Amino acid sequence: MQNIRTDLAIERHALLTETAQELTGVTLSDSWEDDIKTTRVTIKDKGAAQQLKKPAGTYVTLQLTDLRYMKNESYEAACKQIAREITAMLNPISKKKQPVLIIGLGNRAITSDSLGPAVIDRLMITRHLFSQAPETITENLGSVCAIAPGVLGITGIETEEIIRGVTEKVNPCAIICVDALAARSMDRVMRTIQICDTGINPGSGVGNNRKEISQKTMGVPVLAIGVPTVVDAATITHDTLNIVIDSLLDAENEQNSAFFNMLKNLDSDERFSLIQSSVSKETPNFLTTPKEIDIFINKAAEIVANGINFALHKDITFSDIQQYIS
Amino acid sequence: MQNIRTDLAIERHALLTETAQELTGVTLSDSWEDDIKTTRVTIKDKGAAQQLKKPAGTYVTLQLTDLRYMKNESYEAACKQIAREITAMLNPISKKKQPVLIIGLGNRAITSDSLGPAVIDRLMITRHLFSQAPETITENLGSVCAIAPGVLGITGIETEEIIRGVTEKVNPCAIICVDALAARSMDRVMRTIQICDTGINPGSGVGNNRKEISQKTMGVPVLAIGVPTVVDAATITHDTLNIVIDSLLDAENEQNSAFFNMLKNLDSDERFSLIQSSVSKETPNFLTTPKEIDIFINKAAEIVANGINFALHKDITFSDIQQYIS
Amino acid sequence: MQNIRTDLAIERHALLTETAQELTGVTLSDSWEDDIKTTRVTIKDKGAAQQLKKPAGTYVTLQLTDLRYMKNESYEAACKQIAREITAMLNPISKKKQPVLIIGLGNRAITSDSLGPAVIDRLMITRHLFSQAPETITENLGSVCAIAPGVLGITGIETEEIIRGVTEKVNPCAIICVDALAARSMDRVMRTIQICDTGINPGSGVGNNRKEISQKTMGVPVLAIGVPTVVDAATITHDTLNIVIDSLLDAENEQNSAFFNMLKNLDSDERFSLIQSSVSKETPNFLTTPKEIDIFINKAAEIVANGINFALHKDITFSDIQQYIS
Amino acid sequence: MQNIRTDLAIERHALLTETAQELTGVTLSDSWEDDIKTTRVTIKDKGAAQQLKKPAGTYVTLQLTDLRYMKNESYEAACKQIAREITAMLNPISKKKQPVLIIGLGNRAITSDSLGPAVIDRLMITRHLFSQAPETITENLGSVCAIAPGVLGITGIETEEIIRGVTEKVNPCAIICVDALAARSMDRVMRTIQICDTGINPGSGVGNNRKEISQKTMGVPVLAIGVPTVVDAATITHDTLNIVIDSLLDAENEQNSAFFNMLKNLDSDERFSLIQSSVSKETPNFLTTPKEIDIFINKAAEIVANGINFALHKDITFSDIQQYIS
Repeated sequence: MQNIRTDLAIERHALLTETAQELTGVTLSDSWEDDIKTTRVTIKDKGAAQQLKKPAGTYVTLQLTDLRYMKNESYEAACKQIAREITAMLNPISKKKQPVLIIGLGNRAITSDSLGPAVIDRLMITRHLFSQAPETITENLGSVCAIAPGVLGITGIETEEIIRGVTEKVNPCAIICVDALAARSMDRVMRTIQICDTGINPGSGVGNNRKEISQKTMGVPVLAIGVPTVVDAATITHDTLNIVIDSLLDAENEQNSAFFNMLKNLDSDERFSLIQSSVSKETPNFLTTPKEIDIFINKAAEIVANGINFALHKDITFSDIQQYIS
Repeated sequence: MQNIRTDLAIERHALLTETAQELTGVTLSDSWEDDIKTTRVTIKDKGAAQQLKKPAGTYVTLQLTDLRYMKNESYEAACKQIAREITAMLNPISKKKQPVLIIGLGNRAITSDSLGPAVIDRLMITRHLFSQAPETITENLGSVCAIAPGVLGITGIETEEIIRGVTEKVNPCAIICVDALAARSMDRVMRTIQICDTGINPGSGVGNNRKEISQKTMGVPVLAIGVPTVVDAATITHDTLNIVIDSLLDAENEQNSAFFNMLKNLDSDERFSLIQSSVSKETPNFLTTPKEIDIFINKAAEIVANGINFALHKDITFSDIQQYIS
Repeated sequence: MQNIRTDLAIERHALLTETAQELTGVTLSDSWEDDIKTTRVTIKDKGAAQQLKKPAGTYVTLQLTDLRYMKNESYEAACKQIAREITAMLNPISKKKQPVLIIGLGNRAITSDSLGPAVIDRLMITRHLFSQAPETITENLGSVCAIAPGVLGITGIETEEIIRGVTEKVNPCAIICVDALAARSMDRVMRTIQICDTGINPGSGVGNNRKEISQKTMGVPVLAIGVPTVVDAATITHDTLNIVIDSLLDAENEQNSAFFNMLKNLDSDERFSLIQSSVSKETPNFLTTPKEIDIFINKAAEIVANGINFALHKDITFSDIQQYIS
Repeated sequence: MQNIRTDLAIERHALLTETAQELTGVTLSDSWEDDIKTTRVTIKDKGAAQQLKKPAGTYVTLQLTDLRYMKNESYEAACKQIAREITAMLNPISKKKQPVLIIGLGNRAITSDSLGPAVIDRLMITRHLFSQAPETITENLGSVCAIAPGVLGITGIETEEIIRGVTEKVNPCAIICVDALAARSMDRVMRTIQICDTGINPGSGVGNNRKEISQKTMGVPVLAIGVPTVVDAATITHDTLNIVIDSLLDAENEQNSAFFNMLKNLDSDERFSLIQSSVSKETPNFLTTPKEIDIFINKAAEIVANGINFALHKDITFSDIQQYIS
């Protein structure tokens, strides 16, 4: 089941524990506040990192109500919770005078992939004002700059080449990457935000590759904030099949038959491959997104952007932000 | 299995035949030309209409290569095939001087639902020129007008109220409705176009309701052109589950067990409800769309609009259209 | 100077008074509140209507600070002032159970002309909920519906044909049309909102033509809310030329020469034609819009929409609106 | 008159010659082909550069028919003419294996400033395919990459910092910057394209500043392609005033009075300042753009992008491009 596509540490952790594997070097804790369930997964060593296919570090997952229909109080609570988590992770750098650089990853022209650029458009950008309009800078404002580097198919340039080029010029004290993620379950899309201190690590999960954007490769803390917007159609089916089997088993456990056992005991990776090839003969690995993705991206971008705004500037209000971002 | 959500007659027909029900009053024929498979389903009587949950009439389905990567020749062939089908269905009215009214259904702000408005934006609209700039009208040009009425949630007005209001003023000789559809299978999305002469009939499928837009209610021929853009997540799972069961059965038919039989013989509607509730506990009836829906809608709208342009104006070229639509 | 293009009654009034014509049958009064200057022009009889080229009725003009940089308090004050003016004009109908129909005029694809559709997208639309979800209707909510009919070049249908068709189906107790306007002066663009009770009257200004949308033609009160977004390049030049002449005259009045008198005494319409043909030899009547029109339309649409929202629903807050409009 | 805002060398040249200044070190030549008037201004030395406020180099201006209503043949001719000019300027590097880097300058969210990003979206980008999908690379394809760096107000980072950062990583053999320009005359907007080999030089015009993107600062040839999209409202007035004075003078030269001479002999910079302050008391330096800027940007971006595509890839067709750019 390791092939199941998810960028969420909380889902990868669940995948391992549900298959009864022993997991050491990982802690998981939950807390609730303002209708937000916050789950903290800490991957402590290399062994755990390899099992979870994610680099060692802290992954905080906020589980919210459906963003599309969120009440204003929940919306404000979510922004402030994101701000608190960013502040905690950035703590050691919070007194530096260098800017924080925000990277809006993804493709602006594909709605489901446009979270990063959409967040950039809603940030209170101030770095240039420190030199060009110092009279507008109050002591509450931090130095913030941002870029939406585009995607390889549009630029012909690896995203990390652009980020490194810009980082060398801007010399930030920290980097925050924002990106759309894949989740395993439709129930995560629309209501989950993950914040981690490990940066971006496309590929293996256990570091050291050319595309990694992390403290190791960039020399400064790199946070990543992600919101799941797509689910692999095969993954949906796989999970549903398991639920269906369980339901049937409960109902009919007298008939706990040879076939059922065959199905249940089939190696999970094999089972997943079987499903993957069955979902779409024409295009396996079909990524799906909810029909209302346009509305969702708007709302998610607003929440993440304001979380960042509240973290990087002190004592500002929603009104201040609204007026700043024309 | 009748609850499976699909707006395609070809899929509804397959649903019935796969469950071995007897079907009378329906014919289905296939033909191939220019890489396009054209399937013609004709529902001939009320009985068949009730079984298929679609009004009696002709449903032509074009099965194309993936629209996103279509070659130019295939693109042009598709436009012309659509034009031929429209022309055939509109035949008796083709000499009339009244305009053809195109209705672009759907919500412009939700990409997966924006096909109708996107088509309207690409049409050669001429009705007003006949009176206001008659010098620009050549004998090849037909009279064409269009409206994108919006959706109930945005307007507060039932779409059919708007259409009737406009139809009474414009007095068209025929109406063509364009809309995004739901398909049963991901393989249909991105590569299927349905053209029918039964109009739009939300709900039961067998006419007579208040929301029907058809020859019966409007007094003139009503064509509908639809392109599937969404698939119910539960439907994907249901279909995949069947494929998986079949695969396992083939492989392991010695173990054709009590459990398997239970699963297989479970009433199909019950099985579907079970799946539906398992896909997303939070939001059953989750409609999904491919991740790249933005690109797809652009291309599909161009093909459908040009099919309509070629059908309603004679001897025009792609160049003529490009120049007309600024 | 009567050829100068402006849709603002306040500017047309100024045009007449500055050329020292006698004006009877018109009153003009100013008031200030919350940084908003409100000017009320009332055209009382046919004679005045003919002189001003606008139908008899009341035209309220709000003069605000630049919308692009407006403070939140000014923004809220502007919304509420618009609401008050609408409420005053709609007074007799405010207890009716029929819906108010909002018409968003203009072309969604041309930013400077997209105010109407942009307002529609930000309204609290409720008419359909009274029948379909009565449990969501509180006694504060009025019945509101809306349509963006598109423009002639895109639909091939006169806007008023669509409006009449829809009005006959919806049977509203009042209609509010929203549209982008032309102003005479760049200083009006970005900071002016006109609300009038005469409806829309393209062309002559003194009623009775086929395209009029007014109480006379629709049978119910018709308000029009407009925001200037474009200025004729020739008009800018004309006005500037006058200012320049005056400046020079002040400075050099000893030299009050034959040429100057010729220029000054040239019939104003002839002078305007001369300028018009000089601005752009290739395209006379060149309409210009500010470079930042995209930002401006967003903000103006929000203000007008919320003005309407506050007028048609009672005791609602900005929070209520934000949550209602996803 | 040196304060008049224009980014076109052809207009700056005209400004100087019309005020009868002597100009040495500049050549200007015109040629016609396919309805396109091509004007070549070559600034040969420092003295001329200082007078024209533009760095020494070659500025080619294509004068086309109104892009919005262009015939297909003219459109194709324009693309190919742009390609020829680019090829001529890039000649020495055409055999290199390093990529050409295209920079799309400007703000994607302000339509009149979005030409650069709009061009980027229409390019055949290939650099990444050479390493990642070499099987798709034919010998006709050059190596092309691109970035839209955003604007200072959105990123907080000077555009040239981003460009330098990316250039150091990508190591291009040449750079092409694309940007929206200001013209002096409305007649230039919609129908002019300027291609030059001097790069981008905001500010003084005679090099050496921190923001220059040129061969001197980047170490490789830097072309700039610009299309005028905005005109200063004061400039329109200034030019029109001159035309008006001339017309009146022709008509009434008997009255060649003291006032006229005063107006005519007023120092041109003083006259311009006077006009500038008269156009808009609230916002001097008001930049205007044509009402239909949305349509224009689409068309201009297509022409410029295809000019670049034809220059950097050999023997490709419009069909190839259409298929490449999904």
